[in-house]
Amino acid sequence: MTELLSIILAAGEGTRMKSATPKVLHPVGGLPVVSHVLRTAQAAGSRLAVVVGPKHEAVEAAVSRWAPDVHISRQVERLGTAHAVQQARTAFETAAGHVLVLYADTPLVTTATVAGIVSRLDEGADMVVVGFRPADPTGYGRLITRDGQVRAIREHRDASEDERRIGLCNSGIIGFRGDTLRAVIDRIGNSNAKGEYYLTDAVELASADGRRIDYVEADADELIGVDDRTKLAQAEATFQRFRRAEFMQNGVSLKDPNSVWFSWDTEIGRDVTIFPNVVFGPGVKVADNVEIRAFCDIEDVVIGEGASIGPFARIRGGAELGPNVHLGNFVEVKKSKIGAGTKAGHLSYLGDAEIGEKTNIGAGTITCNYDGVNKDKTVIGSNVFIGSNASLVAPVTIGDGAYTASGSVITDDVPADAVAFGRARQENKPGYAPKLREKALAKKAAKGK
Amino acid sequence: MTELLSIILAAGEGTRMKSATPKVLHPVGGLPVVSHVLRTAQAAGSRLAVVVGPKHEAVEAAVSRWAPDVHISRQVERLGTAHAVQQARTAFETAAGHVLVLYADTPLVTTATVAGIVSRLDEGADMVVVGFRPADPTGYGRLITRDGQVRAIREHRDASEDERRIGLCNSGIIGFRGDTLRAVIDRIGNSNAKGEYYLTDAVELASADGRRIDYVEADADELIGVDDRTKLAQAEATFQRFRRAEFMQNGVSLKDPNSVWFSWDTEIGRDVTIFPNVVFGPGVKVADNVEIRAFCDIEDVVIGEGASIGPFARIRGGAELGPNVHLGNFVEVKKSKIGAGTKAGHLSYLGDAEIGEKTNIGAGTITCNYDGVNKDKTVIGSNVFIGSNASLVAPVTIGDGAYTASGSVITDDVPADAVAFGRARQENKPGYAPKLREKALAKKAAKGK
Amino acid sequence: MTELLSIILAAGEGTRMKSATPKVLHPVGGLPVVSHVLRTAQAAGSRLAVVVGPKHEAVEAAVSRWAPDVHISRQVERLGTAHAVQQARTAFETAAGHVLVLYADTPLVTTATVAGIVSRLDEGADMVVVGFRPADPTGYGRLITRDGQVRAIREHRDASEDERRIGLCNSGIIGFRGDTLRAVIDRIGNSNAKGEYYLTDAVELASADGRRIDYVEADADELIGVDDRTKLAQAEATFQRFRRAEFMQNGVSLKDPNSVWFSWDTEIGRDVTIFPNVVFGPGVKVADNVEIRAFCDIEDVVIGEGASIGPFARIRGGAELGPNVHLGNFVEVKKSKIGAGTKAGHLSYLGDAEIGEKTNIGAGTITCNYDGVNKDKTVIGSNVFIGSNASLVAPVTIGDGAYTASGSVITDDVPADAVAFGRARQENKPGYAPKLREKALAKKAAKGK
Repeated sequence: MTELLSIILAAGEGTRMKSATPKVLHPVGGLPVVSHVLRTAQAAGSRLAVVVGPKHEAVEAAVSRWAPDVHISRQVERLGTAHAVQQARTAFETAAGHVLVLYADTPLVTTATVAGIVSRLDEGADMVVVGFRPADPTGYGRLITRDGQVRAIREHRDASEDERRIGLCNSGIIGFRGDTLRAVIDRIGNSNAKGEYYLTDAVELASADGRRIDYVEADADELIGVDDRTKLAQAEATFQRFRRAEFMQNGVSLKDPNSVWFSWDTEIGRDVTIFPNVVFGPGVKVADNVEIRAFCDIEDVVIGEGASIGPFARIRGGAELGPNVHLGNFVEVKKSKIGAGTKAGHLSYLGDAEIGEKTNIGAGTITCNYDGVNKDKTVIGSNVFIGSNASLVAPVTIGDGAYTASGSVITDDVPADAVAFGRARQENKPGYAPKLREKALAKKAAKGK
Repeated sequence: MTELLSIILAAGEGTRMKSATPKVLHPVGGLPVVSHVLRTAQAAGSRLAVVVGPKHEAVEAAVSRWAPDVHISRQVERLGTAHAVQQARTAFETAAGHVLVLYADTPLVTTATVAGIVSRLDEGADMVVVGFRPADPTGYGRLITRDGQVRAIREHRDASEDERRIGLCNSGIIGFRGDTLRAVIDRIGNSNAKGEYYLTDAVELASADGRRIDYVEADADELIGVDDRTKLAQAEATFQRFRRAEFMQNGVSLKDPNSVWFSWDTEIGRDVTIFPNVVFGPGVKVADNVEIRAFCDIEDVVIGEGASIGPFARIRGGAELGPNVHLGNFVEVKKSKIGAGTKAGHLSYLGDAEIGEKTNIGAGTITCNYDGVNKDKTVIGSNVFIGSNASLVAPVTIGDGAYTASGSVITDDVPADAVAFGRARQENKPGYAPKLREKALAKKAAKGK
Repeated sequence: MTELLSIILAAGEGTRMKSATPKVLHPVGGLPVVSHVLRTAQAAGSRLAVVVGPKHEAVEAAVSRWAPDVHISRQVERLGTAHAVQQARTAFETAAGHVLVLYADTPLVTTATVAGIVSRLDEGADMVVVGFRPADPTGYGRLITRDGQVRAIREHRDASEDERRIGLCNSGIIGFRGDTLRAVIDRIGNSNAKGEYYLTDAVELASADGRRIDYVEADADELIGVDDRTKLAQAEATFQRFRRAEFMQNGVSLKDPNSVWFSWDTEIGRDVTIFPNVVFGPGVKVADNVEIRAFCDIEDVVIGEGASIGPFARIRGGAELGPNVHLGNFVEVKKSKIGAGTKAGHLSYLGDAEIGEKTNIGAGTITCNYDGVNKDKTVIGSNVFIGSNASLVAPVTIGDGAYTASGSVITDDVPADAVAFGRARQENKPGYAPKLREKALAKKAAKGK
């Protein structure tokens, strides 16, 4: 396979985002937009070079975290896309194979599009331009083609009436043979209205040199650029549309696809049914035959086969649910491991817990895992019955087959098969309720209201 | 009224569903798709015959449960729709009146369409074909009509350019006079590419016999066939669209119609307001003047006039709410009967309970209804005050006008007008908190982190 | 600035709403539709006159509450829009400046449209008609213009074929110079099919008088009239679309704009991220850098900078959250003030509370604020640690730096730095659990099931 280098331009300011966060770090599908581009380039087996803006330490950090061997360069002055590419000179100077120029704010470019560019270069093209057909091409540069090759990119304002009828527009994404890039990049001038160096000018230079410039077409949806919050929301919507379609094709039932939100890394098995209104944060793997009911917020968890989740469940923080676990309404599970067939049906918080198999967690159970400083563990065995409204004060261990009485505060370990009580005895005061009501009414009267 | 027999073809494999469940048992609006078709046929007063596939015990079971007197036959080899109809021979052989062929994977056909077919047959047609006009007819068979009658159904691949311009397509649904069906069904051949017997060939045979073949038009939305998860989601969306429109016309306010999901049997009164994000499972009846706030999951319950539900309420399992009941946030009610004017506003689980009128259920109340084996009852009278964070250990009865102190575990019956305490006395250790904090910090330090 | 009077016609019956509530009191964005119109007129500095129907005490009350100095008149018989305007005679008889006729069931007319009318009147027009271009103009009256002026309004049924090709339609909204209105209003006749007095007839009378009649165009979306529940839902959807776009432009991230619902008065700062499925009721102000996760229902609260809310949080009743407050899942806050950096992460109800800074509220904490009659206060200091599953029985005060043990019922004040216990000691009965299980099974057997 030919060597591949991707230069990813990430220096844009993104002022229209009205954000203290650089635009390329805003997330789509739970992943920063720049990381989507890095991922796509990596999937094509590419080396990575990123050109960042002058004050973008956060971008550098995020990019390096994702891809430690990335080549990073800074564009101190923003003098156009060709100028940005020049900043990555040490990366492309010695590039043995092809060089791809991608944009850090264009997260949805597919691996198929990248593969298309590469295969054209492999077949002998010197450059490959990615075109697309927007619903309304007004304002976009048009690809001027002849005999199947690109001859020029004409900006809308410079286009003739005939040229404006061309639907095929320039996405900005270009693949180069390394020698072609090196031959043209420093000949690009800046004699234009803004005095900037535009990478698209490489097309006319290469064409004049008699080089072969192919194009591939990508879907307009892939090429959405995240400039402002509206575009960010559109990119998110498109990302979600792609993922929903993919899951449905693979045997997942989405009762209302538009109200299920996936992350970039969500994995879901077959014959899984997802009700309306489920949010998947990052880090979720769902096995086969799971049912996830409405109103669930799920991140960072592995869910075993046959489990039944929700409605109104919240899972997070590195959890592991065995097969046939049931989590019901108003139940939160954080960083806990729950064994096969165990049920927690109602109003519970299970944090930092390890629970065995076929255990029943009563309604209103709370693991008291925090003492203000430390997070401690609650260990519960198999076949345990935790009575409702229990407070399990960690660190604490409850043995297999044990039973805790409803309403108990459990502060000490409970041996296997023992029954633990931790509650006061009930006392009735006959006939006292009317007096309480009188007192309450008197209090109200005293308040003068 | 002429006798009517509906033959419902349910033998399709549905491999594109990628599911262990037969496609016709996947639900739309909470009801298996095949049951929608049975229901529509029943609404027309029709007898029912269903043709199932060879390993479809689950379909047979579901169909028989819905309609115990259904005629079931099996299509062992899948040799086409005409062959499938032949399997129901014992049903149609003696059919006195009309015979309708419907498809078990086409759940949204309306009673109006069925009535249209029947009335044409009653008026003298020998056959009635249901046509529709898809946005893009490519791939569909076209209805070739002359003088208002259908002369042939032309498959797309066999159609001339002129015929391809015809927008009216074949849905596959056909009504027959019984004698017409019997006259043509066994003359249908299989000399085609797949070697199958197609029911649509009945059209040309009947036409050649000089029989009258009418057509009725149905909306394309009615005719969506559930083949894969995407189509299943589309059928669900269309079903929901129909129901939302119907409820709004009848005086129900849906603040965001697209985020309210109904079941096939949901009933809702007038001047009911439903906020965004409400899911109705099967078995819900809502009286007039009810308000249902956002994020509710409601099934199997009768809700009385003037009740106010949610946000974040979950009701299920056969519940009955009297007039003016209020259920607030993070409240679950399961299989409970709640009297007029009673309120449970916050973080409660009421299971297997019977509660009187004008009773106040404090925040955090839990009915401890399960002992690991049995589900026991909690009986609460009228005008009772259940203090917050109560654990009511069933079986237990709390009399009218009684009062339970906050944080109590109630294990014994409370007489009417009594006050029950079931909690420990408070003890303060002055100045001890800083020592606890030191201990916690020391523990953290000892952990080496 | 020229004086301005707005006559708002609110007498329509709205029978298609199928509601006991007058149609103009149904809410859009949490505000009655009539109040939207009052607000828009007020924003233009206008005096207000409202014409209500005969039995519309509720409308009068709502209107007077919103704008105490409103002029209210009743239209006892419903004889058309001109007749309705006549009922406001005492208001317009002496109007020094312009008079605007608006409709109480048309809530989304923008201030820009009103400003457009006023500026045309200021420039010398005698009347200004608001036109719009519906997708399908069939059924609407057309604006017949010549030389940029309106000459007539032609009802669809009276229009020639040429006139029906006109896309510009009559919205019914008209601005008048006061003298023009007074000159024409009583000359409008009722010789038409319904025998009603139509305000649109003012156009032909004024035109015949040689007066100048301008028009301004408004977007069709602004002019949606709330006649039935479907239109109400459409008005709500349009309102939400406007607000979502506005917030995104101002630097708010909406992960799924279609699943966030705002109120008319919602205020949100910059770099706020809102996850899917958040409902804002009236009275919410959100500072910068706040994160609101999925499934929140928020009304009547001020949220401080850097706060993190949800998922599954519910806030209401006049709350105040300081900077960096965290409210987690299944947490309700009602009428409480919470200090900077305080956290309540799980399954809690905080009602009528005042909480200091950097306090930790354990999972399952309940303020027992209600005694059946009175709502009492819970006061919690700064740096307090409330152990999980606490019941705080109001009125009660917990001092700075105090600590309450998990599972405690706190009925008495806790001094600063004290530790409070209010729970029973645990007792284990070794080996007793199998006996409990036997008893439960025996009970089940005895039930005969």
